Amino acid sequence: MSTEAKITKTEARKPRGLADRGPADIAATEAMMRVIREVYSRYGFDALETPFLEYTDALGKFLPDQDRPNAGVFSLKDDDEQWMSLRYDLTAPLARYCAENWQNLPKPFRSYRAGWVFRNEKPGPGRFRQFMQFDADTVGAGSVAADAEICMMAADTLEALGIPRGAYVIKVNNRKVLDGVMEAIGIGGEENAARRLIVLRAIDKLDKFDWVEVGKLLGPGRLDESGDFTKGAGLNDAQIAQLRAGLAPLAEQVEASTEAGRQGLAELNEMAALFSAAGYGPDRIKIDPSVVRGLEYYTGPVYEAELLFEVKDEAGRPVRFGSVGGGGRYDGLVSRFLDEPVPATGFSIGVSRLLAALQALGKVSTTPEPGPVLVLAMDRDVAGMSAYQRIVKDLRDAGIRAELYLGSAGMKAQMKYADRRGSKVAIIQGSNEREAGEVQIKDLVLGATLNQTKDREEYLAKQAQAQFAVKVEDVVGAVKKVLARHG
Amino acid sequence: MSTEAKITKTEARKPRGLADRGPADIAATEAMMRVIREVYSRYGFDALETPFLEYTDALGKFLPDQDRPNAGVFSLKDDDEQWMSLRYDLTAPLARYCAENWQNLPKPFRSYRAGWVFRNEKPGPGRFRQFMQFDADTVGAGSVAADAEICMMAADTLEALGIPRGAYVIKVNNRKVLDGVMEAIGIGGEENAARRLIVLRAIDKLDKFDWVEVGKLLGPGRLDESGDFTKGAGLNDAQIAQLRAGLAPLAEQVEASTEAGRQGLAELNEMAALFSAAGYGPDRIKIDPSVVRGLEYYTGPVYEAELLFEVKDEAGRPVRFGSVGGGGRYDGLVSRFLDEPVPATGFSIGVSRLLAALQALGKVSTTPEPGPVLVLAMDRDVAGMSAYQRIVKDLRDAGIRAELYLGSAGMKAQMKYADRRGSKVAIIQGSNEREAGEVQIKDLVLGATLNQTKDREEYLAKQAQAQFAVKVEDVVGAVKKVLARHG
Repeated sequence: MSTEAKITKTEARKPRGLADRGPADIAATEAMMRVIREVYSRYGFDALETPFLEYTDALGKFLPDQDRPNAGVFSLKDDDEQWMSLRYDLTAPLARYCAENWQNLPKPFRSYRAGWVFRNEKPGPGRFRQFMQFDADTVGAGSVAADAEICMMAADTLEALGIPRGAYVIKVNNRKVLDGVMEAIGIGGEENAARRLIVLRAIDKLDKFDWVEVGKLLGPGRLDESGDFTKGAGLNDAQIAQLRAGLAPLAEQVEASTEAGRQGLAELNEMAALFSAAGYGPDRIKIDPSVVRGLEYYTGPVYEAELLFEVKDEAGRPVRFGSVGGGGRYDGLVSRFLDEPVPATGFSIGVSRLLAALQALGKVSTTPEPGPVLVLAMDRDVAGMSAYQRIVKDLRDAGIRAELYLGSAGMKAQMKYADRRGSKVAIIQGSNEREAGEVQIKDLVLGATLNQTKDREEYLAKQAQAQFAVKVEDVVGAVKKVLARHG
Repeated sequence: MSTEAKITKTEARKPRGLADRGPADIAATEAMMRVIREVYSRYGFDALETPFLEYTDALGKFLPDQDRPNAGVFSLKDDDEQWMSLRYDLTAPLARYCAENWQNLPKPFRSYRAGWVFRNEKPGPGRFRQFMQFDADTVGAGSVAADAEICMMAADTLEALGIPRGAYVIKVNNRKVLDGVMEAIGIGGEENAARRLIVLRAIDKLDKFDWVEVGKLLGPGRLDESGDFTKGAGLNDAQIAQLRAGLAPLAEQVEASTEAGRQGLAELNEMAALFSAAGYGPDRIKIDPSVVRGLEYYTGPVYEAELLFEVKDEAGRPVRFGSVGGGGRYDGLVSRFLDEPVPATGFSIGVSRLLAALQALGKVSTTPEPGPVLVLAMDRDVAGMSAYQRIVKDLRDAGIRAELYLGSAGMKAQMKYADRRGSKVAIIQGSNEREAGEVQIKDLVLGATLNQTKDREEYLAKQAQAQFAVKVEDVVGAVKKVLARHG
């Protein structure tokens, strides 16, 4: 390893906040998404996919915590000098798709899509710059029955995944209620739009911060541990108190003091009636005035899927698992492009968050696929390799996962490789066996327990089962028998 | 539609060369990929995924036709000023992954991965800037048995997808043979590397151009129809003639006149023996000296999966379907990062090309999922919507795809929507029916054939089947009966 050689080598590394995924993670995610797709399909939603790159202006700027232009997204210029961005969610591209194809779509348009999205943000533990979302949306339906249906679908999905009733709740609120409260404390109107957004995002942090810290964000601003200062909404103490009262359950006087507030309450009541009629009690879906959602584009009902069971945080303290998805009504997003109003509502699951929850509950198998039957490469000449290749082919033709060792290492390393791969069977044919038309079959599972056997008779019997010779033409049958021993 | 309003609207459009995908395409691709995964898994390959963004220097520059720096790829700068690129294939990221994790991987490392890749090239008909590849690679195996196995796996995969024997062939060659021929005509050595690359890419165009046009690319250069001039390799006529002879089958004298050529021929012979021993005759896998593959990084065996049946081109002329995938040995790609040699070989399928082939052969179902049973929204008050919601829920709980109409249109438009969605059953409950605890069930398939019935008796009988009333509690049973009528 000379220094000279090292200098010329490229370093093998990933950009920050990006991850590789192995077979167990991929299989578990696939299994989970299959269940979600089944539920969504039963609800009448169809699959749709949009590309990873969109024109930046078509995506719009709807990310929270986005202070600089283009911050939060990965952007690059196309040949014709137009800015493109990697999609940061699946809602903005859907709005572009619906607007582009509106004349030809069945209306309402019901679709679901799973896909990777990208955020150009500071990565952290469990916080990636590429992650997967699974969305379902109804576009072209103004009735809150559409919102109610998606909440019920979210509940059904969590139960279909094995999360027991009582371990989750879908919390529902309505932006108009909050708009009413904000109007009541004097920050209504176009001129206060930026301030209202700060208020929304502050309240959205109530799952992480207490009212003291959120109060700072609502008031003069907040200095975090790292020394970063976040500008506050500039509300005074009386306004903050009234806002807090408006977020409390049954604060209907405050909420109903404006037209927006009254409308929001009426819509919540209608949704509650639909939930109740369909048999979804407050143990599954409940109205909760504390839900706000941090995104600017919501215009009516907002909802959040929360898991109630506890897990340990990094410090070993028990904490609620928390949100695994959410959504709401975004009536303005499609009509950004069109000359007609297009009401819409949708729900987004954080795929890796939900998978982590299922793993915490033991509802996802993390057992990798069984390793292949390994045919060892004893003689590496063409005759030897041809013979091994034929054995492997026979096994595969019989539907058995099998592989010929293709590296250059010796027998000991090959057995170690079988172990690494989780192989249950190894097949060995030296030149003597080849001449006799035979192979040795090794039961690696049984073989691993041999030295725990004390009794000599039993040892010999087991040993005979753990390695034995068969004719080449009987390999498939013999391997099947050994595999059957171990389920 | 005022001009004023139009000016403020964002245009709903996608960047060039990118496409949306609907349910039929997504389902067909999924079904195809499931079969590929099964074959690859049976061969002992495991799933792996890498992120979409990589450091540009880690990807390297291995794209053909890449004249300008950064051309061919989508690149952007990270916060720390390092260049990142969207992956342009799945081989370069795999090389980065293997190098980064080499100490901890089982060796050889066998993996497969399907994923979107991105090329910043001029889009055209059927030529997208985002497309999907499905790769399998064996890293850490220097033996050509690893290449041979992947060729056999490619053949098995095509047959598992329903492509009949005789309708495809896996063509195999070895870069070393071509290197030998190039050395023989005097363009060996480091100083001719760029020229050899031009030669490789010219020969790789033999599937599109005849020898006259390829000869221009090998010689002084070629002016295409659009007026673009491509610089040639500058070979003289004698060199071109000798090169052409070297590419002809059984031109062993030319090929064996150098050490590289002899080695390449020996490797091809070894592979041929392995194919033959495993029962893969030249009707499935054949040695073909015309295969070169346009990528610079191949170092040994190269292979290509070609479909032999004919389809019509844009002008209606019959043409061979052609290549749906290919690959080869790339012994230098992983060791770019490491201080040890890491031989590797892999195969890549062009997913949409292969899907198009299966569609041309009628081997992929393009029937979309059946439309949902549609419950019409007749009374839109809470009582009405609650009643409809309950019916929909009962159907879904029985595993039936069902949906409540959530738009605001009248009954006629709702029936049209059912038609658009491909619904076979509609359920109607007006206020009278609701009071009586009944619904009307409409068999939309039967209903559509009613007016073809001439005979009055038959008409009445059919009509009674096509629409009938049932008690609300019998809806599920009645819907099941109607769905069973239509398979």
